[in-house]
Amino acid sequence: MTTPESFGKHYLVDLMDCDPEILKSVERVREVFVRAAKDCGATVIDDLFHQYDPFGVSGVVLIAESHLAVHTWPENSYAGVDIFTCGEEMSPEIAIEILAKEFQAKRVDTRLQHRGMLE
Amino acid sequence: MTTPESFGKHYLVDLMDCDPEILKSVERVREVFVRAAKDCGATVIDDLFHQYDPFGVSGVVLIAESHLAVHTWPENSYAGVDIFTCGEEMSPEIAIEILAKEFQAKRVDTRLQHRGMLE
Repeated sequence: MTTPESFGKHYLVDLMDCDPEILKSVERVREVFVRAAKDCGATVIDDLFHQYDPFGVSGVVLIAESHLAVHTWPENSYAGVDIFTCGEEMSPEIAIEILAKEFQAKRVDTRLQHRGMLE
Repeated sequence: MTTPESFGKHYLVDLMDCDPEILKSVERVREVFVRAAKDCGATVIDDLFHQYDPFGVSGVVLIAESHLAVHTWPENSYAGVDIFTCGEEMSPEIAIEILAKEFQAKRVDTRLQHRGMLE
């Protein structure tokens, strides 16, 4: 067994120019997130979502591989997503594709950060 | 009012050489996280924590300013934390200090990423 280089990969994903109506709805954001988690091969443990007044959604899906989280600013058509993964069982790229498509993002900026580098 | 440069600040915090006994306990990790969120000036909305078998904890505290999340690897004395904030009401640095102290981390690596840069 080879020594892993880090404990996990952390994808910071900025979804811009999304459909604001989708970003306003906690039900819709939650449904998309849970589906993205399952379809990318993650094992869903639980989720927690919150609807802000007048609008905006925060939420997280805890997965056996770590988490997917989102915060939406519908007034700016922006969703800030992060996906923390460990292991090789899931494909964060598939989750990002699903989220970008479902939120109708016209611009996607993804940064990958390695977490807990082993020496 | 000046235009904000980004929607939020995202702190990626690697806590290394922690006390593994603390990282094993979901009750203790949750207590420390909720307290860190409150003491740094955040407004706590809700939280979700999970205990892995045989050990390890994942959890998130949703706050009005976004979130604090943690994943622990007690077998490696490692905790991977991230704090997503918007606004200037809270002090992530205070939360990081509390977490490092309570987990007895001997090494702390903090990276700040600006999220959703406005053009």
